[in-house]
Amino acid sequence: MSILLSVTGFDPTRWRDAMLRAAPSETIVLRPSSSRDETIRYAVVWRQPPSVLSELPNLEAIFSLGAGVDHILADRTVPPSVPVVRIVAPDLTNRMSEYVVWRVLDHLRRGATYRAQQAARIWNERRQPAAAEVTVGVLGLGELGRDAAAKLRLMGFPVIGWSRGPREVEGVETFHGEEGLSEVLTRSDILVVLLPLTAETRGLIDDEFLSRLKRETPLGTPILINAGRGALQRDSAILRALNDNRLMEVSLDVFEREPLPQDSPLWRHPRVFVTPHAAASSDPAALAPLITQQIAAHRRGEPLRHVVDRRAGY
Amino acid sequence: MSILLSVTGFDPTRWRDAMLRAAPSETIVLRPSSSRDETIRYAVVWRQPPSVLSELPNLEAIFSLGAGVDHILADRTVPPSVPVVRIVAPDLTNRMSEYVVWRVLDHLRRGATYRAQQAARIWNERRQPAAAEVTVGVLGLGELGRDAAAKLRLMGFPVIGWSRGPREVEGVETFHGEEGLSEVLTRSDILVVLLPLTAETRGLIDDEFLSRLKRETPLGTPILINAGRGALQRDSAILRALNDNRLMEVSLDVFEREPLPQDSPLWRHPRVFVTPHAAASSDPAALAPLITQQIAAHRRGEPLRHVVDRRAGY
Repeated sequence: MSILLSVTGFDPTRWRDAMLRAAPSETIVLRPSSSRDETIRYAVVWRQPPSVLSELPNLEAIFSLGAGVDHILADRTVPPSVPVVRIVAPDLTNRMSEYVVWRVLDHLRRGATYRAQQAARIWNERRQPAAAEVTVGVLGLGELGRDAAAKLRLMGFPVIGWSRGPREVEGVETFHGEEGLSEVLTRSDILVVLLPLTAETRGLIDDEFLSRLKRETPLGTPILINAGRGALQRDSAILRALNDNRLMEVSLDVFEREPLPQDSPLWRHPRVFVTPHAAASSDPAALAPLITQQIAAHRRGEPLRHVVDRRAGY
Repeated sequence: MSILLSVTGFDPTRWRDAMLRAAPSETIVLRPSSSRDETIRYAVVWRQPPSVLSELPNLEAIFSLGAGVDHILADRTVPPSVPVVRIVAPDLTNRMSEYVVWRVLDHLRRGATYRAQQAARIWNERRQPAAAEVTVGVLGLGELGRDAAAKLRLMGFPVIGWSRGPREVEGVETFHGEEGLSEVLTRSDILVVLLPLTAETRGLIDDEFLSRLKRETPLGTPILINAGRGALQRDSAILRALNDNRLMEVSLDVFEREPLPQDSPLWRHPRVFVTPHAAASSDPAALAPLITQQIAAHRRGEPLRHVVDRRAGY
């Protein structure tokens, strides 16, 4: 009766320790004793090695270490019958909303301009629109998108939102489907992307997508903020739009290739703000207990919460 | 029956035009016909020339173009019997709260560190505390301080506040008086200063004040944000605290001398963010109507709102 903790790309020690602090009686292994290890009932994964989960005969549930599950579903050897669970945690949601509000305000308040003026010792006030004059469009109205939209509203921005299917969000004018997307793109002064990565959204932010944005906004041209997944965007299309001034500024936490390659022009572009996929990083101390509690509840026969719709991909 | 619009430091044309758009029948003059001009009933001022108001026999009220009135009260020749009115406007309040939330988030999210990493093409995530672990202290609980405190709370920060006299603010633990100030200084991880400039607050932020701050915070040492008045602070004391690492980072919108002198070390300090007194600049289009409406109401015999307590100085 053990839990498999299987990740690539980072050291799982902090996660294992946090899970054991939350559930000292659990047995946590970092790899199966064999491809058919019968003791493993639950898997907690982030970019697990291919097919590590494919043959485990007693696997009952798979937990992602983050809000995204595309890294799990991309592995076609994951048994289709085993439920996949995403993390929904206030800590994660709050951190993402922090990032979104921070970036939206930095663009509204002309942070880049004032930093450049400071470096040149220039004392020169720049006019800026009121938040009420700047429409923020949020693509993706899941846990993260809805919380970000609510906090942007409280800061005084008119907020519109888009999701694949119809969604009601208090105080936010929402749209869905292909027509709805065009409506949001043509009305957003600042566009915040918090979409899951699915077959439908992969490569969504391309030349055609960017060509549908507004031509003029109170800040000049539109501003793009992507804190979803790098594979949603074409880095080259974003650079073209910046250099044609079809985009005013962008904040990118995610990229087609991560870490962002040293030779990417995004690093040094004066109108690009780069963070290393850190918008809402999982804090093991806050999140591990949510996983071990779900495992304990499942053992008691209770249903799993936040199970992914594997056909929809999120 | 005219209105005197008297300012120094900038061109009053936008204000005059905005006031005339809001009240086309008013007569607005930029200077009195004589020191005893009997036609002037109301004065709208920002750093008016000394004694321009001293002898106007029919002056009924003086309006500040901003939230601060220290520039009016500093002129001892302003007739003591004439009410002085400050602007209280959602546009002004929202812009100040934008600045405060923007700066608090930029410090919490390690904006300066990530910008330096980007310039060096370094992909390296920095851990950060959750907002819930970072106490923000707000000095000054007037219109601006209360709104900023409420919005910081909504972003997840524990907020404590201080004002000269007792003040209740929902969800905010408030303190007052000298003892209360010590309490707030020793508990704040991020300190936001939104105090009025008075005889009591002039030079408040000095070496002794800064020595009362916490030694350690979740972000390292305390962070200071001053968006009140430059004369509240001693620039040199802030620099000493930064260089001794008693302050981690500061955001300053105001300075002892404005514009900030070219030779000030604050311009190039890597842990200082400078804006040119632009945190909440008055937008004539939004604010002029509030002044002309008050003048019209006063002519109808209605009482003035937001009259300053000249003894208290705010």
